[in-house]
Amino acid sequence: MVAIIDASITRFGKRKESLLELAGEVALPLIGKYEIDFVVVSNSYSGEFNSLSGINNLITTYLSVDKVPSIRVDNTSGSGGSAILVAKSLLDSKITKTVLVLGVEKMSEKNTKQVTSVIASLLSPEEKIVGLTLPSLAGLMTKEYMRRYNASREAFALVAVKNHYNGSLNPFAHIQKVVSLEEVLNSPIIADPLTLYEFTPISDGASAIVMVRDEDAYSFTKKPVFIKGMGASSDTSYLSEREDILTMNAVRIAGLTARKMAKVDKVDFAELHDMATVLEIVEAEELGLLKKGEGWKAYYDDYTKINGEMPINTSGGLNSKGHPIGASGIAQAVEAFLQIRNQAGSRQVRNARVGLSLSMAGFGNSATVIIYGDEP
Amino acid sequence: MVAIIDASITRFGKRKESLLELAGEVALPLIGKYEIDFVVVSNSYSGEFNSLSGINNLITTYLSVDKVPSIRVDNTSGSGGSAILVAKSLLDSKITKTVLVLGVEKMSEKNTKQVTSVIASLLSPEEKIVGLTLPSLAGLMTKEYMRRYNASREAFALVAVKNHYNGSLNPFAHIQKVVSLEEVLNSPIIADPLTLYEFTPISDGASAIVMVRDEDAYSFTKKPVFIKGMGASSDTSYLSEREDILTMNAVRIAGLTARKMAKVDKVDFAELHDMATVLEIVEAEELGLLKKGEGWKAYYDDYTKINGEMPINTSGGLNSKGHPIGASGIAQAVEAFLQIRNQAGSRQVRNARVGLSLSMAGFGNSATVIIYGDEP
Ligand SMILES: [Ca+2]
Repeated sequence: MVAIIDASITRFGKRKESLLELAGEVALPLIGKYEIDFVVVSNSYSGEFNSLSGINNLITTYLSVDKVPSIRVDNTSGSGGSAILVAKSLLDSKITKTVLVLGVEKMSEKNTKQVTSVIASLLSPEEKIVGLTLPSLAGLMTKEYMRRYNASREAFALVAVKNHYNGSLNPFAHIQKVVSLEEVLNSPIIADPLTLYEFTPISDGASAIVMVRDEDAYSFTKKPVFIKGMGASSDTSYLSEREDILTMNAVRIAGLTARKMAKVDKVDFAELHDMATVLEIVEAEELGLLKKGEGWKAYYDDYTKINGEMPINTSGGLNSKGHPIGASGIAQAVEAFLQIRNQAGSRQVRNARVGLSLSMAGFGNSATVIIYGDEP
Repeated sequence: MVAIIDASITRFGKRKESLLELAGEVALPLIGKYEIDFVVVSNSYSGEFNSLSGINNLITTYLSVDKVPSIRVDNTSGSGGSAILVAKSLLDSKITKTVLVLGVEKMSEKNTKQVTSVIASLLSPEEKIVGLTLPSLAGLMTKEYMRRYNASREAFALVAVKNHYNGSLNPFAHIQKVVSLEEVLNSPIIADPLTLYEFTPISDGASAIVMVRDEDAYSFTKKPVFIKGMGASSDTSYLSEREDILTMNAVRIAGLTARKMAKVDKVDFAELHDMATVLEIVEAEELGLLKKGEGWKAYYDDYTKINGEMPINTSGGLNSKGHPIGASGIAQAVEAFLQIRNQAGSRQVRNARVGLSLSMAGFGNSATVIIYGDEP
């Protein structure tokens, strides 16, 4: 298997820097320290947002490592997990020794309406025509969860309260602000019943990790973070065809595959894809982190908080840290790297030895689960 | 290493079918025959040309293999070679057993001016501003080649004559028309001295191969085509920074790496990236297929023709077969598959046991060389 030997992240948010400058901010310090022999760029919308193509080559040129081969890996919001899977494969195949995986997205060159329209381009053409959007699906999912499990409306808002609190402890998070339950409930409704604070903002940002094979890891650092298991799965893009709006097959299968490979039952923390608050709950249930149909109850006490039994989204998650599309999955790996190395500062989970991340495209169209640990 | 066990291609050209329909045309027959467990989509501009994102998921949904994980690999014109490198790595890493690599691009939804502008988005922003384009570079390269090596103007046109002849024998080629030397020389000048017939047209199309590990190959077919070697390299995107316009470092290094891995000196045929005629000559020289500075002379006799000593672009090449960006690199593998299996019909090379392909981005910004053979 493979290991992460270093990591870097920019402040997420509305940034004045260009896509190439953001990439440079995370990558230049790493390029200087290691002999990188392949660059995997995780990015989804450089064409649509920035009128750039071939950005993997533009980035290696910008970093002055012209001769290092590179590719762009795209899987929309789940690009980061896919890029890490590709990097792991390139290392396993012995084609490369030291891979830089760089996630970057510069979204704020377009306005909210344009960004929403671009992201909706991942929906099936037929469903886009009838006005389906990812936020509207999150609203429908929330209503069905509440109905089926007799869940409270507040539980979902409490996800946002927790994640905003966690994000306030993360110097790289977009929204560095604590919000109260009342503030979440009283913010404008985006997709009934979910409100503004329950959705991820539009962010710029970049994140990077350096990956090597297990056997090389200790020659670079005393504390590598190992990738113990990975799973990737997929589900129909036709959301109206899903058997059940509360079932996320790709997430469940990717999670089972990763756990089986990693041979771990218990994880000490998890970074999930909380594009909307409801998703954190449903994903945690599909991944076996919370009990099916009862996940919402966990948000009434400390269970998912940093000091709880199953800390979720200690980084602030997409909800508060932000979601620069291609950078998000790599940012999850950065958080796992910091937590397992005991470098997460005021949001440090005690005894964080094994972590899990879920990188996801669309509404579970594609899912990659990674399990990280302090040993191979 | 790995092997190709099956292949499929659509007719290239202006097609009425959508991107998903073109993908279906190549992939549905293959999906029905094999238990595909990963889909790597080679595509560069679905956002810009078709207002679609997440096309890997849209394609698996369209193919009714919803649960098969997938990603999109992009490296502009060199996406195909990169996608094959990723598929090989996924197989080597044992994550997958049977990978469908599917190249597709639907370009004709935009007009020529729009397509040219989108493709120019791979140039460095500074160079784009001063009006540099890929065709203009090809013109400059031709003039410098003629000056330095005392080459004739006709030699470049003879590349187009040969490739159009080869394309006329390929039922999947875009331009199924033989052209004479006079017709090439008298067609409109695009980038002095190169004319219309010396550049690749704008095409729609799809191509696909099924890849497995070496040891599994004979359980699927009596005649697998093995990937014996691969090399990937890169060069600066700042074309004005290149030491010499006639030197393509990425091509040369990728070629040396692939040959070393494959342990072969002589190849029986090659598919090169003839976006413009001059590139076929310069690439062939960098790859050691033709002698440096004397490659142009080879076009005055049969040397590079189907029945010659070193057949180049038997498929018609980008020049006549067409260049649907993401589909091109996979189409080269399809041609290698057919040639080595002795299934190339009227364009069959005699004793085609070892082949080479060069998939390239921009003007040598990125290069992937693959060596194919009838044994591992
Ligand atoms: Ca279906």
